[in-house]
Amino acid sequence: MKIRKLPPAANSHAFPLLIKSLLAYSLVLEPEREIVYKDLVRYNYYTFNERVRRLSNVLDGLGLKGGETVAVMDYDSHRYLECYFAIPMTGNVLHTINWRLSPAQILYTINHAEDTVLIVHEEFLPIIEKFAGEMPSVKHIMVTTDGPSTNTTYPNYESLLNAADTHYDFPDFDEDAVATTFYTTGTTGDPKGVYFSHRQLVLHTLNLAATFGFVDSASVRCRSNDVYMPLTPMFHVHAWGFPYLATMFSMKQVYIGKLSPLMVADLMKREKPTFSHCVPTILQVVLHCPEAKAIDLSGWKVMIGGSALTKGLAKLALERGVDVNVGFGMSETCPVVAVSYMRATDADGDLEAQLTARTRSGVPTIFTDLQVWNEAGMPVAADDKETGEVVVRSPWLTQGYVKEPEKGAALWKNGYLHTGDVATIDANHSLKISDRIKDVIKSGGEWISSINLESLIALHPGVAEVAVVGLPHPKWGERPHALVVLHAEARVEQDDLKDHIRPFIDQGQLSKWAMPEEFVFVAAIPKTSVGKIDKKRIRSEWPQTIGQKI
Amino acid sequence: MKIRKLPPAANSHAFPLLIKSLLAYSLVLEPEREIVYKDLVRYNYYTFNERVRRLSNVLDGLGLKGGETVAVMDYDSHRYLECYFAIPMTGNVLHTINWRLSPAQILYTINHAEDTVLIVHEEFLPIIEKFAGEMPSVKHIMVTTDGPSTNTTYPNYESLLNAADTHYDFPDFDEDAVATTFYTTGTTGDPKGVYFSHRQLVLHTLNLAATFGFVDSASVRCRSNDVYMPLTPMFHVHAWGFPYLATMFSMKQVYIGKLSPLMVADLMKREKPTFSHCVPTILQVVLHCPEAKAIDLSGWKVMIGGSALTKGLAKLALERGVDVNVGFGMSETCPVVAVSYMRATDADGDLEAQLTARTRSGVPTIFTDLQVWNEAGMPVAADDKETGEVVVRSPWLTQGYVKEPEKGAALWKNGYLHTGDVATIDANHSLKISDRIKDVIKSGGEWISSINLESLIALHPGVAEVAVVGLPHPKWGERPHALVVLHAEARVEQDDLKDHIRPFIDQGQLSKWAMPEEFVFVAAIPKTSVGKIDKKRIRSEWPQTIGQKI
Repeated sequence: MKIRKLPPAANSHAFPLLIKSLLAYSLVLEPEREIVYKDLVRYNYYTFNERVRRLSNVLDGLGLKGGETVAVMDYDSHRYLECYFAIPMTGNVLHTINWRLSPAQILYTINHAEDTVLIVHEEFLPIIEKFAGEMPSVKHIMVTTDGPSTNTTYPNYESLLNAADTHYDFPDFDEDAVATTFYTTGTTGDPKGVYFSHRQLVLHTLNLAATFGFVDSASVRCRSNDVYMPLTPMFHVHAWGFPYLATMFSMKQVYIGKLSPLMVADLMKREKPTFSHCVPTILQVVLHCPEAKAIDLSGWKVMIGGSALTKGLAKLALERGVDVNVGFGMSETCPVVAVSYMRATDADGDLEAQLTARTRSGVPTIFTDLQVWNEAGMPVAADDKETGEVVVRSPWLTQGYVKEPEKGAALWKNGYLHTGDVATIDANHSLKISDRIKDVIKSGGEWISSINLESLIALHPGVAEVAVVGLPHPKWGERPHALVVLHAEARVEQDDLKDHIRPFIDQGQLSKWAMPEEFVFVAAIPKTSVGKIDKKRIRSEWPQTIGQKI
Repeated sequence: MKIRKLPPAANSHAFPLLIKSLLAYSLVLEPEREIVYKDLVRYNYYTFNERVRRLSNVLDGLGLKGGETVAVMDYDSHRYLECYFAIPMTGNVLHTINWRLSPAQILYTINHAEDTVLIVHEEFLPIIEKFAGEMPSVKHIMVTTDGPSTNTTYPNYESLLNAADTHYDFPDFDEDAVATTFYTTGTTGDPKGVYFSHRQLVLHTLNLAATFGFVDSASVRCRSNDVYMPLTPMFHVHAWGFPYLATMFSMKQVYIGKLSPLMVADLMKREKPTFSHCVPTILQVVLHCPEAKAIDLSGWKVMIGGSALTKGLAKLALERGVDVNVGFGMSETCPVVAVSYMRATDADGDLEAQLTARTRSGVPTIFTDLQVWNEAGMPVAADDKETGEVVVRSPWLTQGYVKEPEKGAALWKNGYLHTGDVATIDANHSLKISDRIKDVIKSGGEWISSINLESLIALHPGVAEVAVVGLPHPKWGERPHALVVLHAEARVEQDDLKDHIRPFIDQGQLSKWAMPEEFVFVAAIPKTSVGKIDKKRIRSEWPQTIGQKI
């Protein structure tokens, strides 16, 4: 097909999509608004911009010429946000280190990403210092602290900024330049690096603005007057991209440092955030922590992602006035590719209708060609019954894995990124993730969704948290086993939970094979480094440790 | 500077920014919503999509292979909207013909754009038929009608669609492909063609979504639940880009055909639009037309552009409950590069504060590097006093003029598009256009803003409309002269208006040179083809015809 291309312009007018445009806009609407870090730091967007320029001069002063990787290993903070901008805007690549990984994995990612500079919180220095001699690419280390530091070995981030020039002209360059990278832990093998370009992060930010702003949904929207407090760590998919959105529109932002229920409660009280996002576990912990019980949470909008929002947790949230719904994505998708869309009629429904609407996995966002494919690679019927794998195309998906083309080839097949999530989809394009492909339990010829089973178990009032995994069974192939954390005051026995589940089987909501083989009560459920239930570990450790009841 | 580019991907994953993605999303959120054309046509987004596919097959059936120009000369309609998508999505270029131009100018644009196909409303056929033999590029003409047609010469749009296949796979291609073109009439010479690519229209649409959706302003936002009715003609800068936005988010849309106050009133009553945009004159006419006087307009959000919104008109609108504010742009800028931003405190102000806030020219939209430059090419002080020319960079500006590089070179200078508008800017980035450079009146060594003077004259309760131009004066260089249209019932003499203006001079709001030399009362003020006051014509015709009082 022929097309007509733009003729060369009479003047230089190219306008690449670069992160610097997001920062530039932060000075337009409400630059007097504040970025807050715990009870320690509070400054406006003029200061923020100046500090980003100072940091850029610091990076240049280290001899970085662009195209190098600068890693950050810090708690969520204003400093981290400065790095979100200065590192890519100087043409370098921001590597957000997941400090929840094991030291060996952290070392692996530093070397695999070929980090030149490390910006490290002093609490993590002991880990880094043990790596001495094992990080050939690292030329500079600087240290962040929340106050006076005992460290004298490495230059201090704050001192370097103070000494730096406040002027910096951020250059234009190709919008396909890599801006960020980080590592995701799969089910097997070493962490894999995903990476995103300036163009991708800019388009993802516009996606969030349109999806949360222009789309008029009856729940959890986010607009420029909201007060934003991320509860997803900043090392994890750029805190789902919202810090870029919040900064662009000069929203008030609140950063929590090391996440704790106490700090959440304290910041809720003092800074009154109105929009947050987190994995279900975090919301669970916040809703149950004694410190938050005394606080009025009504009007707090929370988008849940990372794992399924159970009806039980959604109910608990709604009872506290928390407007909760769901976004869908993964590290490879930047991440947001679907978000709950509640029509006014959904919002008018009774509690059960509300819970059903709010716990679905979302409707595709703009520019997102999201499909559910059966094993033959054909779209499933939009009947909310036939299951298949979620596949997706959009402008902001990782193009592969860093230096591992063969793994990228497994991710991208037939032109679509394969998410590994099993779902149904209904006639309104609303997705319902039923499981990870590898977590589906195949028992007696039936496929049982571990997530569906968890959601129903979680409806029992005594259950605080639950994980269901399939364990090998000589006769049935696999059988479901449930790990349960009870509320402190709850008195619940295995038979109570079986009685709770049986009606769902009788009503046909669960297959007859779905009754768990056992309910094991534990003090805590193993989690991955980003707070998801670690089913791989549960399966592998079950016979030894997990099977030990509390 | 070095950057690191994305490595080639393991799979085909490129995702160009194409208009087809906007259309695809129209089937996601609320595809049952309707697109309405007068009281004649009403269908949902499934039908709309099917008709776009049919039209695409019709275009292919004509032998178009992409890269050709298809012109539309129709009133605002569902058909026009179909052309907005099918023509660029088949790789061709949509030429929106301004039917308010003179026949000679229309012929000029058809030939200059090298149109291959004309889609013409039967009311315009007589004009086109007179061009027989003078349009060498035109190979096909099809005719649109609102009902049974007497035309038997040319195929009928509706019949062609009915006979066409409903299936079409829209291809991917380069996002820099030209999508649309149209002609703008400058102050001198032939109309000039501007042109926009798929990428530009997509980014402009996202700009509107973020600016009207995510930005939380106290006035005139637009969100997906609004009912959209454009009152800016679709041939004019794609009705300011909003039809693309409205379609993408499956908003209910109302198209008016040939604009008339009666039809506006009728559609307001029957379809209850909540968001419109237009030039001031149209709002003026609607507010004064007897048919609309009986209708409750409260809650109607209207964005004004094209010319300055006077405080008088804004007051009139607010009194009727119409939420009015301002967008800024021009044909060359796609068009929107600034929009009113009202803080809650602005909205809480008294009427005068409201009028001041609502009649400013707006705050730059995202990705818009908008500056006001003095004659030395330096930014003016952000003091709302120093005036200069508005210059702009953004991703959606025309790259030049079709086949006229020398005119493009005058438009783009020093890396910025020069708008020809004179403005001040305040510390909040809020722009106040004071005039077109060529309309500024230079009198006795002072520069007088014709727009400022018009705005103050319009505050007189007897004045319906006013135009001020500078005419040559032997002693003072130029002197301001005012053309005034009075309300039907008003009894106003020249001296009444001088008495009305004098206090503004005494208070220092106007220079002492600003008192018009004369106020001439006329029945109507000459307008350009897009409804702006035609100052060029007023100046040239003043001595002969305009000077004749009514």
